[in-house]
Amino acid sequence: MFKHQKELQFEAKPDRPDPIVAKYLQELIGGQYGEMSVAMQYLFQGWSCRGEEKYKDMIMDIATEEIGHVEMLATMVARLLEDAPIADQQAAMQANPTVGAIISGMNPQHAIVAGLGPRPADSVGNPWSGAYIIASGNLLADFRANLNAESQGRLQVARIYEMIDDQGVKDLLSVLLARDSYHQNLWASAVKELEEKEGSMLVPTTFPRDKERKDIAYDFYNFSQGDESSTGPWASGEALDGEGEYHWYDEPKVEGSAPNLKPVSPKMYGTSENKSEI
Amino acid sequence: MFKHQKELQFEAKPDRPDPIVAKYLQELIGGQYGEMSVAMQYLFQGWSCRGEEKYKDMIMDIATEEIGHVEMLATMVARLLEDAPIADQQAAMQANPTVGAIISGMNPQHAIVAGLGPRPADSVGNPWSGAYIIASGNLLADFRANLNAESQGRLQVARIYEMIDDQGVKDLLSVLLARDSYHQNLWASAVKELEEKEGSMLVPTTFPRDKERKDIAYDFYNFSQGDESSTGPWASGEALDGEGEYHWYDEPKVEGSAPNLKPVSPKMYGTSENKSEI
Amino acid sequence: MFKHQKELQFEAKPDRPDPIVAKYLQELIGGQYGEMSVAMQYLFQGWSCRGEEKYKDMIMDIATEEIGHVEMLATMVARLLEDAPIADQQAAMQANPTVGAIISGMNPQHAIVAGLGPRPADSVGNPWSGAYIIASGNLLADFRANLNAESQGRLQVARIYEMIDDQGVKDLLSVLLARDSYHQNLWASAVKELEEKEGSMLVPTTFPRDKERKDIAYDFYNFSQGDESSTGPWASGEALDGEGEYHWYDEPKVEGSAPNLKPVSPKMYGTSENKSEI
Amino acid sequence: MFKHQKELQFEAKPDRPDPIVAKYLQELIGGQYGEMSVAMQYLFQGWSCRGEEKYKDMIMDIATEEIGHVEMLATMVARLLEDAPIADQQAAMQANPTVGAIISGMNPQHAIVAGLGPRPADSVGNPWSGAYIIASGNLLADFRANLNAESQGRLQVARIYEMIDDQGVKDLLSVLLARDSYHQNLWASAVKELEEKEGSMLVPTTFPRDKERKDIAYDFYNFSQGDESSTGPWASGEALDGEGEYHWYDEPKVEGSAPNLKPVSPKMYGTSENKSEI
Amino acid sequence: MFKHQKELQFEAKPDRPDPIVAKYLQELIGGQYGEMSVAMQYLFQGWSCRGEEKYKDMIMDIATEEIGHVEMLATMVARLLEDAPIADQQAAMQANPTVGAIISGMNPQHAIVAGLGPRPADSVGNPWSGAYIIASGNLLADFRANLNAESQGRLQVARIYEMIDDQGVKDLLSVLLARDSYHQNLWASAVKELEEKEGSMLVPTTFPRDKERKDIAYDFYNFSQGDESSTGPWASGEALDGEGEYHWYDEPKVEGSAPNLKPVSPKMYGTSENKSEI
Amino acid sequence: MFKHQKELQFEAKPDRPDPIVAKYLQELIGGQYGEMSVAMQYLFQGWSCRGEEKYKDMIMDIATEEIGHVEMLATMVARLLEDAPIADQQAAMQANPTVGAIISGMNPQHAIVAGLGPRPADSVGNPWSGAYIIASGNLLADFRANLNAESQGRLQVARIYEMIDDQGVKDLLSVLLARDSYHQNLWASAVKELEEKEGSMLVPTTFPRDKERKDIAYDFYNFSQGDESSTGPWASGEALDGEGEYHWYDEPKVEGSAPNLKPVSPKMYGTSENKSEI
Repeated sequence: MFKHQKELQFEAKPDRPDPIVAKYLQELIGGQYGEMSVAMQYLFQGWSCRGEEKYKDMIMDIATEEIGHVEMLATMVARLLEDAPIADQQAAMQANPTVGAIISGMNPQHAIVAGLGPRPADSVGNPWSGAYIIASGNLLADFRANLNAESQGRLQVARIYEMIDDQGVKDLLSVLLARDSYHQNLWASAVKELEEKEGSMLVPTTFPRDKERKDIAYDFYNFSQGDESSTGPWASGEALDGEGEYHWYDEPKVEGSAPNLKPVSPKMYGTSENKSEI
Repeated sequence: MFKHQKELQFEAKPDRPDPIVAKYLQELIGGQYGEMSVAMQYLFQGWSCRGEEKYKDMIMDIATEEIGHVEMLATMVARLLEDAPIADQQAAMQANPTVGAIISGMNPQHAIVAGLGPRPADSVGNPWSGAYIIASGNLLADFRANLNAESQGRLQVARIYEMIDDQGVKDLLSVLLARDSYHQNLWASAVKELEEKEGSMLVPTTFPRDKERKDIAYDFYNFSQGDESSTGPWASGEALDGEGEYHWYDEPKVEGSAPNLKPVSPKMYGTSENKSEI
Repeated sequence: MFKHQKELQFEAKPDRPDPIVAKYLQELIGGQYGEMSVAMQYLFQGWSCRGEEKYKDMIMDIATEEIGHVEMLATMVARLLEDAPIADQQAAMQANPTVGAIISGMNPQHAIVAGLGPRPADSVGNPWSGAYIIASGNLLADFRANLNAESQGRLQVARIYEMIDDQGVKDLLSVLLARDSYHQNLWASAVKELEEKEGSMLVPTTFPRDKERKDIAYDFYNFSQGDESSTGPWASGEALDGEGEYHWYDEPKVEGSAPNLKPVSPKMYGTSENKSEI
Repeated sequence: MFKHQKELQFEAKPDRPDPIVAKYLQELIGGQYGEMSVAMQYLFQGWSCRGEEKYKDMIMDIATEEIGHVEMLATMVARLLEDAPIADQQAAMQANPTVGAIISGMNPQHAIVAGLGPRPADSVGNPWSGAYIIASGNLLADFRANLNAESQGRLQVARIYEMIDDQGVKDLLSVLLARDSYHQNLWASAVKELEEKEGSMLVPTTFPRDKERKDIAYDFYNFSQGDESSTGPWASGEALDGEGEYHWYDEPKVEGSAPNLKPVSPKMYGTSENKSEI
Repeated sequence: MFKHQKELQFEAKPDRPDPIVAKYLQELIGGQYGEMSVAMQYLFQGWSCRGEEKYKDMIMDIATEEIGHVEMLATMVARLLEDAPIADQQAAMQANPTVGAIISGMNPQHAIVAGLGPRPADSVGNPWSGAYIIASGNLLADFRANLNAESQGRLQVARIYEMIDDQGVKDLLSVLLARDSYHQNLWASAVKELEEKEGSMLVPTTFPRDKERKDIAYDFYNFSQGDESSTGPWASGEALDGEGEYHWYDEPKVEGSAPNLKPVSPKMYGTSENKSEI
Repeated sequence: MFKHQKELQFEAKPDRPDPIVAKYLQELIGGQYGEMSVAMQYLFQGWSCRGEEKYKDMIMDIATEEIGHVEMLATMVARLLEDAPIADQQAAMQANPTVGAIISGMNPQHAIVAGLGPRPADSVGNPWSGAYIIASGNLLADFRANLNAESQGRLQVARIYEMIDDQGVKDLLSVLLARDSYHQNLWASAVKELEEKEGSMLVPTTFPRDKERKDIAYDFYNFSQGDESSTGPWASGEALDGEGEYHWYDEPKVEGSAPNLKPVSPKMYGTSENKSEI
């Protein structure tokens, strides 16, 4: 069960309206790695959690914080859209090329659909999708997903930070950068603990390794011309998982044969080599 | 530039046809973490790579291997669909409930659309989407994405391994399990190297930390009832990044005020508190 | 800002596991009119609200309640999936046709992707989409959207209520039915108040009607054969908006001419009637 | 069965080409609440209609009219794109910033994909989706959906009306505004009739209310800080449905307990609290 | 402008209800190559047509026919869903495995969302998408798209024809098969005429061929192992376009160099080879 | 199995950076008819091929070439994005309207998400979708799909060729134009061979024509006003398939009756004409 508190966790006030900055911030609201994604991802992970209570409790803490992050960004976008040049644009574009560029660059749905409010979509207008998120029931896998999400998220915030000048927006971004720093630390710490506790870094750690083809589990195959890949830490020495030695092979191992599919029922009306069968 | 070799890297022959197993394997072909995803993700990362040549070369090696993984699974699915009960199904369902269950459970597009071949889609029929993948230009971020993808991927393969009995399919899955093991090792090794080389684990490592709100970058805020989250490694002690101490707060920090949006132009025909303005 | 309380608002315990019921409940979680939709729709409406504080406060109350509804359903789905027949399915299907039907009917992503947890998707597996929701900045329009959403939602709950036997699930559905009843009452009451306050039932009420073609604003045109449509309340008498009289016309009004597009630049390489131009 | 008449119902001629206005009008063609949506929504409702013939006939009339609305807008977009600055744009952008803004602002698919014709997509390029529409088999529910669609639609037309200067386009928009006025009247009239006929305003009206938790069907729970929501018509007095009294509670009712999921089969390779089980 | 006639063009009555056949027919309604696709594709082509009036008129004829095809299939689906086993399914599945298979195999949205009516979606539930269709403004290109659509469409109808036993449904399918036959003939005839009239079979026929690399416009490059491809009609002899000779090369032509991207601004926070730059 | 060669097949170097041209080229990478589409379409066709080996081998050759085309375009986009005006844009837009237009026109995800690299998406940002492609198992159908894809593809390349000035980009486009010319020739040659070999041009050629309503298989019905359609080659004379004579009818044939759906179970809570039934 959730409750809402009226105060924003942190302030969300731009120095001045700017519909193009509003368009950029949509990436942080409804993009693949925006706040809707982390909020929903953590919620579903928390609701599915069958692990220790401390994990479930922690996931729900962070999930709940992230809903508030969407709120701050949504508020910021609404304010950035105030006073956008929405009326009589054809004349305005002719009169002033700078205004023309702003009109051209703004997201038309911010005006037409949302009446100068935020959208559940990314910076080019793709609606947010449940396909962005994962809750697998395996915490080690999912915490890696979370670490990635916070990494991509902080990277995107850092880029927008450089793209704009508005100090009010930058103040909010500096908050998000810090929280993303913490969340990278948090998920990395949780990953480390789980790897130690489960005694392996291979997800899923409980799958019996004698059921996999362990003889090919440490091989690098050189599928692309050039051998620069042989100089990386993945090419030789003891594997990170502590159970094998990396090997770099100049050519891929080939065990299979050229596949030759059998004809299927002529009632499927496909093209078959065996014409008599059709 | 790419070249194709007729042999499959590993064999892809089921013991017997089974359209329901074919449906499951679609998750590994065209699902969020299927082989199309890793192939495309690594290709775009390789093509965008501005880092050291050894990374680019390595990424292209793995990307190219993964296209071949799609090929093996596509071949397996085609073979699993041979002899599916596709004709005169209404009578067949009445005659034999086990056949009825198979007909009910198979993906109808395997017959109607693909004529008993594989689909670029997942196990419930969602078409593969470019929205599944990431190539950010930041290798540390992307290698974490890759480590996650291989973790989710191996988890899904392990689950299907348990769900089925067909030894021929399991043989291919045991290959994929091993390659996913290697790829988890590989991306983790590459992540480790980059973190050491860049001197930080916070993506992006080059963002000046004095521009973020570092005073709140190590705080855990207890947004959900209960304090079990205070017992994890993310709640106290030195942070993984080595630049701060974790703190657990029973209540979130609140700096913001309750947001109060200004009315916008009446030409947007929204609802405004200030009715005179409309 | 949001906070999370550990208790579910209402209990969410099925009498027994059933993965097919779990599949149905996904429609109520991640379908077009599921709880994710109403939660997200109300959140975006609240965050964009420029109307009176009582509306904003009310919207946020309901929005926050709805996140908790997703939580109850997610918990229910997780429990319905416990003990699903996930292992060695090929043998199980042969051995027992009833088990076979359950295996055939369950959502394979519940096992393969979510490890027996809920998905952010509907009952056929389409991921939830931001395209389902609206927050237009016009409260009268949006409250109508909300009234529709609660109507479609209650209708779907009622259908599932009849489709299943499990009393534990029905207990939760009877809660949702009641809350949807209240929410229909609530949005209808709010619509009524706004229509009265704004003095019109035509969204947007503030658009000057002399700018529309008011001469055709009360006409029913008979575009389909048959005149049964002339017997409805929309065909004659005073219009609901109180500003006109309905008229039913046997034939549509036609003012336009047959369109004849001009050829465009030959550099677009289209097909033009005027071949010399290409 | 349908027939086509060459004349447009109303004229669709802009005063002058303008590719940015063309981009805006796409929202009215292929947006969530565009004419493709209402046409398709009404068609599916008509084709599924099991209610009185007068409803089916009326729905098909309006559905058929709406296909013609797509046609008028498609024609308008084609004409607005004539003479767009499509050739040698790089030089043109350097030479004239106003032209540059137009080039920047136009939808590139209008040129590259459609050769200066309309697209089945919205103003930011999202393709139209069947997920926008509803035909539930329950007319009261669906007429509410239709009333909402015409409300959102008229709102968007009104906004574009203000955003542009072109009188020819405005003439068409004034037609659409009038038809949307009529259609709001029509659906509201039909809703009123059905509510009276079915003796209830709660969709579905036939669900036995003793199967829902009627004791909580009139409660407002204050999930968000602040009590402004207590001052609305939904908070006290007789409910609109005439079967209860609204009550406003300062705190939500809580009946549930904190959920504790059971571990599932270790063959799902999830993370379980009970490690021995894995 | 369109008009609706109440009669179906052809009868749409199944011998008996069958929700699984209803699910299959959804592919023909809302699939990639279903009737919604051809209806919408032809409508947009007609509305964008700048070619001779006879083409525009013909396209609108076929487009209008196709809307009626959706209608026939929608009616058939509604009838196939009547008497589906929707109530008390859990008991029914236990009692009768054949009923169980039907319940498992039916599309749950047919009941929950549509109340036993058709959906604007395909046989696995993907909503119809505007991304399925093309209207390029180039009739030769689009008539090829249409020829393909009618080919895929007739293939799918033929497959479903074999999969089912219901004679009433087969009667409608035999109509669709015939109309698809005609439409293949029609689009092929129109393609032939345009190729002759435009004097080329290369779309777009008006692009000056001296602007393309004509020296590589007749080469087959052997990118895959094996030389079976050298035995086809594309490998030697005069090209179909009459302007060149096909050549088969054992190895691809390689003109490019290995790409080496330059570092970009450090403000993008990517990974660069040149670390000093970051 | 695939291998990667470091050299690009052809050079991919623009004369100068230009983020708007980069945006356009995305259509050729990730659009409906971009290189990802043809690569994936041909791969799935090859992997599913049950026809003669020469077809399978040929399909794999072209598929493999097309992956390399994505690579060339991805490289070009990365280079076009170098030196894009990404920093301090708000000041830059005010200072220089031409720079402002470039900032407005660029795809924001090129900077924020991809760090100045290519995206798996089209020119308006829609992610590439598996729903774009087809592999039906019927080669004649699929080769028509391929002929269409190469026609639409070459048309789009030709348009972009005219829209831009950059000679380096044009050099690559002239390569793509030539390869698309060849591929149109190739698929048309293969279509011709299959039509001759299978003795029919009606896909699927093996469906027994006595099962279709051959009496209506050569009729053109005039569904739209005007009789210009009667003058085309599809309206009279021998049909292309050689099995009938085209006929043009001024009115459509009507065999069906007005559909009247039966009421369904009241447990679906729909609206039924027969109120006693609810």
